[in-house]
Amino acid sequence: MSNIDIPEVLNSDEIGDWDMSCDVAVIGQGVAGCCAALEAHRAGANVLIIERASGGGGASAVSSGIYYLGGGTEVQKALGHEDSPDEMAAYMMSSCDPLDPLAVRQFCDDSASHFSWLEEQGLPFERTQHLDKAVFLDTTECLMYTGNEKLWPYREVAKPAPRGHKVAGTGENAGSVGMAPLLEKCEKEGIPAIYDSNVTNLVRDANGRVCGIRVKQADGIIHVNARRGVILAAGSFNMNTQMIADNIPLLGETSEPLGIPSNDGAGVRLGLSVGTATSAMDGVIPTASIYPPAQLIKGILVNKRGERFVAEDSYHGRTGNFVMEQPDQKAWLIVDQDIFAYPEIPTANHSFVDGWETVEEMEAGLGLPPGSLVRTMEEYNKNASEGRDPVLFKSPEWLKPLDQGPYAAFDISFDRSTYLFITLGGLKTGADGECLDARSEPIPGLYAAGATAAHIARSGKSYASGMSLGPGSYFGRRAGRHAAGANWSRG
Amino acid sequence: MSNIDIPEVLNSDEIGDWDMSCDVAVIGQGVAGCCAALEAHRAGANVLIIERASGGGGASAVSSGIYYLGGGTEVQKALGHEDSPDEMAAYMMSSCDPLDPLAVRQFCDDSASHFSWLEEQGLPFERTQHLDKAVFLDTTECLMYTGNEKLWPYREVAKPAPRGHKVAGTGENAGSVGMAPLLEKCEKEGIPAIYDSNVTNLVRDANGRVCGIRVKQADGIIHVNARRGVILAAGSFNMNTQMIADNIPLLGETSEPLGIPSNDGAGVRLGLSVGTATSAMDGVIPTASIYPPAQLIKGILVNKRGERFVAEDSYHGRTGNFVMEQPDQKAWLIVDQDIFAYPEIPTANHSFVDGWETVEEMEAGLGLPPGSLVRTMEEYNKNASEGRDPVLFKSPEWLKPLDQGPYAAFDISFDRSTYLFITLGGLKTGADGECLDARSEPIPGLYAAGATAAHIARSGKSYASGMSLGPGSYFGRRAGRHAAGANWSRG
Repeated sequence: MSNIDIPEVLNSDEIGDWDMSCDVAVIGQGVAGCCAALEAHRAGANVLIIERASGGGGASAVSSGIYYLGGGTEVQKALGHEDSPDEMAAYMMSSCDPLDPLAVRQFCDDSASHFSWLEEQGLPFERTQHLDKAVFLDTTECLMYTGNEKLWPYREVAKPAPRGHKVAGTGENAGSVGMAPLLEKCEKEGIPAIYDSNVTNLVRDANGRVCGIRVKQADGIIHVNARRGVILAAGSFNMNTQMIADNIPLLGETSEPLGIPSNDGAGVRLGLSVGTATSAMDGVIPTASIYPPAQLIKGILVNKRGERFVAEDSYHGRTGNFVMEQPDQKAWLIVDQDIFAYPEIPTANHSFVDGWETVEEMEAGLGLPPGSLVRTMEEYNKNASEGRDPVLFKSPEWLKPLDQGPYAAFDISFDRSTYLFITLGGLKTGADGECLDARSEPIPGLYAAGATAAHIARSGKSYASGMSLGPGSYFGRRAGRHAAGANWSRG
Repeated sequence: MSNIDIPEVLNSDEIGDWDMSCDVAVIGQGVAGCCAALEAHRAGANVLIIERASGGGGASAVSSGIYYLGGGTEVQKALGHEDSPDEMAAYMMSSCDPLDPLAVRQFCDDSASHFSWLEEQGLPFERTQHLDKAVFLDTTECLMYTGNEKLWPYREVAKPAPRGHKVAGTGENAGSVGMAPLLEKCEKEGIPAIYDSNVTNLVRDANGRVCGIRVKQADGIIHVNARRGVILAAGSFNMNTQMIADNIPLLGETSEPLGIPSNDGAGVRLGLSVGTATSAMDGVIPTASIYPPAQLIKGILVNKRGERFVAEDSYHGRTGNFVMEQPDQKAWLIVDQDIFAYPEIPTANHSFVDGWETVEEMEAGLGLPPGSLVRTMEEYNKNASEGRDPVLFKSPEWLKPLDQGPYAAFDISFDRSTYLFITLGGLKTGADGECLDARSEPIPGLYAAGATAAHIARSGKSYASGMSLGPGSYFGRRAGRHAAGANWSRG
C-alpha cells in the first residue's frame, strides 16, 4: 500500500468551532449506513448521515439485491427448506475460515430474525424461489442457491440450503428495490442527512478518540463533531486503481469494477489514517459466469496446459478466481454436442472459438500441448462414466462423459473475456463493527460496516452472492447500536 | 517487500570464463536439494550442489523428521490404517484450498510410492505408531496424526488417517537421522558438492534463460554455468527479520524462528530477482502447543474478551495462528480440577497463572470483562454435556463440562509464551518445481523446491507437521528430473 493516499488525521484542538454536531456520524448511505443510522437513531442517539452522492442508495442500490441469510428465515420455511443456525454456521465456518468465528456464529444465530427485521422495514421479499443455476434474475423470485453450498467439500459438512434472498426487483440492479424503503425510513424517522458531502479527514481528541470529521462541500469545508462515534459505511475500494494495483495485481485491463464512482476506498483510507488494520486486501470476486444455461456446467474448464483446474460446478466467483490464477490467465470451456449452448451472461463476452470433429483437432486448434487435452478428457470421461471426479470432486449431478462429437470451445480467458469484480478487503472489525488495530484492539470512537469493512469471505473462492448486503445490513445495525451506547441483544 | 534486498541479475555476456560448469546447479543441500540432486544425477545430468554451510543437511537435519505422506504407505498398511490417494487428496484439498490442485493430486497419487523411494534411499521408518496427541517424540515410533485430520470440518470430508511418518530418530532434531542416508547417497553416487559457498546472484543468457550463478567463497568469487537449470533449494526466510517484519508483522519479540542461520530468504530473493512470483508470504505456523498431555484439550481457550476463538483440538500450529490474531494477542487455557495438568512442551513457556474456587473469581483474577467468562463457560458446559459444540465444532471426544472446581488458568498469550515459528511463503512453482511469474508462466531455467517454494498450506491454520519434508522431498525429486530433461512418471 506504498502509494495510496492516506488522509491526514486532525486534532480536535486544531478545529475552531464545530459547524455541526451529533452523537453518531454515519458516513455513507448504502445498506450498511442506512441500517446503522436507523439503529443508532432508534437507540436514542442524535444521528447525522453524510453522503457523497446527491442522494442515498450507494452501490447497494445498483447491486443485484441479494441478501445472504438463513438459519430458517420466513422464506426458507414457507418454501419447505430446512435450515438452522448450526448448518448455516457450519457452511460459513468451513467455506470462509473467518478471522472472527464468533461474529460469524452470531450472524448465523441472528440471521432469521434479521431477515424479519428487513421485512419490517419494508423490503419486499416474495415467498418464491428459483432453484436453477443463475447469476441474477429477470423475475422477482426470491430464494436462490447463490454460493458453494452444494459444492464439495462444503456439501459434506453442512446440509445445503438456499440462502440468497433477493428483493422483489429484477435484473442486475434489483438492489434499488431494497434500498428505497430503507431510505424512506431514514427520512420518515427524521434522521438528518447531508448530501454532496465528502468526508476528507477524521478528527481525534486529546485522548486519541475519534470525535469528528472534516467534510468538503461545494461551497467550502465544515467540521462535524460526533460525540459517540463515527461509522464508516462508505463502500469498497473497487474504483481506486492505485489500491487495486497494489493489492490485486492479477486484475488486468479487461477486468471491470462493479460499483459506483465513490467506491474509491475513502472509508478504508480514513480507517487506515488512525491505525485500523486491514484484512483480505488481496481478496476479490472476479465474475464472468459460464452459466446459465446450467448444462454448460457439464463441460470442463481447461488451462493452457490442457489441464482442468477448478470444479466446474463452483460458484461463478470461485471459478473466476481460479481462472485469474491460471498460466497466462488463459482458460477455455469445452463442451460436446450433447450439451452445446452459448453462455448467456452478455457482459462476460466469452467467445466461441470453433467446433471440431475430434478432441485431437480441438487440442491442436486451441494450441494446447500435444496429447494434453486428449489425456485430460480421457481421464475425465472415464471417471465421469463411473459418476466420480477424484481430482476436483465435481458433483455427480454435473458429470457426464464428453464423448459426443463434434466438440466446441469457448474462450473464457481472464485477459480476454470481461470479468466484473468486487473487492473483498477492508478494515478489520469486531462483531459490533468496532475498528480494530493489528492486534485486534479497538480504535476508540471508530466503526466500519459494509464494504468498507473486510468481508467474512476473505477470498472470492468462498464468497457467495448476498454476502455483501446480508452481513453489511446486519453488522451495520450492530455498529449503529453500539455507537449509540446500546447493547445488541442476540438471537 | 519494500525494504528487502533483492540481488542484481547478471547477464552471461558480463561473465568472462565460467569457473565451473554443470547441467544442473542445486543450491542448498537440505532434503529438497538432496532429492533434486539425486534424481537429476540419475537422469543423466551433470549435477553440482552448492551449499552455504560446511556440510549438508540444512534445516531438514535439525527438524523433527516428520514426512507427511499417505494414500496407503507401507507403514500405514502394516499398521492397518486404511488410506487412499482419494482420501488424502480430499483432506489436503479441503484443508489447504491449494493454488495448484493438480499438483496436490499428483503428490497424493504418488505419495505411497514416494515413501517407498525414501526407504530405498535408506531413510529408516519403523512399522510403529504413536496415536496419542504429541508434538514430537522421544521414541523412534513412526506413524502419527500430525495435522487437522480429525478436526471438524475435515473429518466430515475425508476419512482421517495418520500421515505423519517420522524417521526412526528421537526428539526435536530427529530429522538428522533421515538426512544422513540422503547425504551419503549423494556422496556415494559421486555428485560433486562445494561447501561454504554462498550463491549471491543468478546469471541469465541473452534469451532471458537462467544459465548460471555467482558464488561467493572465502577466497573469492566464482561463476558456475548451469546449462539446463538452477534449482533453488535454499530453505525458508525464517531468519530474515526484514522479510518477517514486512510480511508477518504480528510476529513479535517473543516469537522465535525455527531454522538455521542460512534461512535468510536467499533462495526466495534470488527467485524474486528474475521475476518469480511469491505466494502466501504472510503464512506462518507459530507453535507453542498446549498438549501434551492430551487431557488439556478438554479445557477451553479464551481471549481477553472472555470468549473462545478456536476449537481446542486443532493442530497446535492452527491454534497458535488464532492466538496470534486475538485482541492484544492475549489468551488463556482454562481447566478444572478433573483435567488439571501442566502443559509439557518446555519451550512453550506457558505459565500457570493461579487457581480459583469459582469461575467468577477466575474471571476477576484474569481481568476479563465482568460476566464474560461466566457466560462463555455456562454455554460451553451446557453444550458439552449434550456432547456438542455448535460454536467451534470441537470433537465430542474432547468435550466435557468444566464444572469441577477449583479452576486454573495458564497464560498462553502470544506476546508472553514462546511461539516457535516456521514461515510458509515462498516462490510460486508448478508441479515440476518450475518457478512461475505472477501469471503462472515459467521462468526459463529456474526451479525451486522445499521451503524456498511456497508450501501447499498457505496458512498455519491448515499446515500439518511433515508438510515441509514430505512435499519438499517429493517436489525436489520432480524438479531434479525436470531440470535434467526427464519426465516424471506418475504413480
